[in-house]
Amino acid sequence: MAQLRDLKDELDIVIPTIRNLDFLEMWRPFFQPYHLIIVQDGDPSNTIGVPEGFDYELYNRNDVNRVLGPKASCISFKDSACRCFGFLVSKKKYIFTIDDDCFVAKEPSGKEINALEQHIRNLLTPSTPLFFNTLYDPFANGSDFVRGYPFSLREGLPTAISHGLWLNIPDYDAPTQLVKPRERNTRYVDAVMTIPKGTLFPMCGMNLAFDRELIGPAMYFGLMGDGQPIGRYDDMWAGWCAKVICDHLLLGVKTGLPYIWHSKASNPFVNLKKEYKGIYWQEDIIPFFQSIVLREECTSVQDCYIELANKVKERLGPIDPYFEKLGDAMVTWIEAWNELNPPPPAQTATVAHPNVAMKN
Amino acid sequence: MAQLRDLKDELDIVIPTIRNLDFLEMWRPFFQPYHLIIVQDGDPSNTIGVPEGFDYELYNRNDVNRVLGPKASCISFKDSACRCFGFLVSKKKYIFTIDDDCFVAKEPSGKEINALEQHIRNLLTPSTPLFFNTLYDPFANGSDFVRGYPFSLREGLPTAISHGLWLNIPDYDAPTQLVKPRERNTRYVDAVMTIPKGTLFPMCGMNLAFDRELIGPAMYFGLMGDGQPIGRYDDMWAGWCAKVICDHLLLGVKTGLPYIWHSKASNPFVNLKKEYKGIYWQEDIIPFFQSIVLREECTSVQDCYIELANKVKERLGPIDPYFEKLGDAMVTWIEAWNELNPPPPAQTATVAHPNVAMKN
Repeated sequence: MAQLRDLKDELDIVIPTIRNLDFLEMWRPFFQPYHLIIVQDGDPSNTIGVPEGFDYELYNRNDVNRVLGPKASCISFKDSACRCFGFLVSKKKYIFTIDDDCFVAKEPSGKEINALEQHIRNLLTPSTPLFFNTLYDPFANGSDFVRGYPFSLREGLPTAISHGLWLNIPDYDAPTQLVKPRERNTRYVDAVMTIPKGTLFPMCGMNLAFDRELIGPAMYFGLMGDGQPIGRYDDMWAGWCAKVICDHLLLGVKTGLPYIWHSKASNPFVNLKKEYKGIYWQEDIIPFFQSIVLREECTSVQDCYIELANKVKERLGPIDPYFEKLGDAMVTWIEAWNELNPPPPAQTATVAHPNVAMKN
Repeated sequence: MAQLRDLKDELDIVIPTIRNLDFLEMWRPFFQPYHLIIVQDGDPSNTIGVPEGFDYELYNRNDVNRVLGPKASCISFKDSACRCFGFLVSKKKYIFTIDDDCFVAKEPSGKEINALEQHIRNLLTPSTPLFFNTLYDPFANGSDFVRGYPFSLREGLPTAISHGLWLNIPDYDAPTQLVKPRERNTRYVDAVMTIPKGTLFPMCGMNLAFDRELIGPAMYFGLMGDGQPIGRYDDMWAGWCAKVICDHLLLGVKTGLPYIWHSKASNPFVNLKKEYKGIYWQEDIIPFFQSIVLREECTSVQDCYIELANKVKERLGPIDPYFEKLGDAMVTWIEAWNELNPPPPAQTATVAHPNVAMKN
């Protein structure tokens, strides 16, 4: 297995929260070397306690409004979708985002799992979306490509997203929570796999890492929560958009290890209220995303995302005016992204004046 | 989890071999209630020893020639591809096929794995090829569909193939064997997953089960071994054909559990000689299968397979005359299949004369 490089200066941990971050105590041995971006949801006058010794910046709603001005309208309020503001203001290449009710899980051997280290391993090794490897991640220790795997595909593709899983409380929707209130995930599946090209998946934002440079502008968590007709579909929305764009740009998405310990099921009755339009709409949204073909001219994530926003308005708009608003917010998000993340100097810029291109 | 029904009268175990079947001793508690079909490869005058107490029929090359007449040309000689003769002569709904160097594996807990029971579970529960479930098999005990999984897809599709894995000696090609002679698979991944629609996989014949009624005619292991320019691609060929047809007919393919213990690596130098044309050709074969679109009128496996045979001759024939011969053999195989497995009475036949349709 390739030696992992240290990402202390290349990765931010983004945490959306409404409460004191005592959960960080358990993560201290793993997170303390990293910089945290905390996005405070809800009432900005509340004080969020952060345990001593962590290096962090904290943004509340007032900060979001100050930084983005009128474009702040694209950032959700009273929904964990607000976490994507952290993706926007980060200056690092990699992001790891985690919910504040997630704790350190253990391997079956009892060993504590360094989730961040596994995400980094996932992101720094290639993905294999073009052909299925039956022994799972061929870049894992003691593994490889099996007989019949085309040699021309064994270099793999760059990995854009690492989707981690959850022991204890599984990520179920409200109806499943209601039907199976006592179900717990106890199955530790010792695998990382690439989600094949052309296949959509339900991306959960609870334990998620990605390469901001490769896919950042697609990690918009939509319009959810306060003033919106829908909640708890923020990460799903980002996952559908990001997967379609990864497929188009030939980037990889992995799922599986690492596990975190998800401590508390949210209220299924509250969830049902938030989700019910999503449950209904997703029957149209999924076929929409499954049928998306992006134009060849879309060669950047931003290009792809704007194209997607237009298609959302055109093809999902007729379902509900919400999708018109969402499509507009997707465009606003990209404008905000480009403002806060100006493109690097164009390759045609002369070496003597690199700043000229940056200022454009 | 659904109660499994007993398949003693509905499943045959097919074993290709050139030696005494002492390996059956270890499988006795699991296999003894089932009927075995043993396909003896190589010199028919050799005697294959079968441990006492097993119910079996044994076919050597003379039997193959007697049963199939001139159509016996489609059955490979001196290659484990001959196993598909067993699929042809079976009268059961399900097949489990296993190599004679595969033994009972153990779970990490030390418990012996009843591979056949897990295959049956895989075949009798639905597959989910149309959308990815991040918690793996939603029909496994203690598992379900995660948030964001469309409800309209939760019934799943019928499962046609269950592809099991191998602990100890992994199924590597000759170059990988040569480079990593000491690599052993020790990673027990406690998962079954559906291979998504539109994604090809390398199907290994070592530990494999399928529903003969759903996909049997596609499980042809090609022309390999004696007199052919290629070997060790028999199961791969069947896997590519079967997956394309499963995708077209909306049938599922699962991979993962159960594991068997693969005891002995075959000789990598001998393997390299058998494989080298396959390694070269697969770079064209894979894109060919990835681009296959079967006509809507193909509604039976046989229809699909004949269409595929024509495409093989047309599009792979230019690579090597071998593919012309293979395409012809694919057609012969279907003729043999239809001869030995006459279609059930057509639904238009009157109830009073069911045999009329059968005789046609």
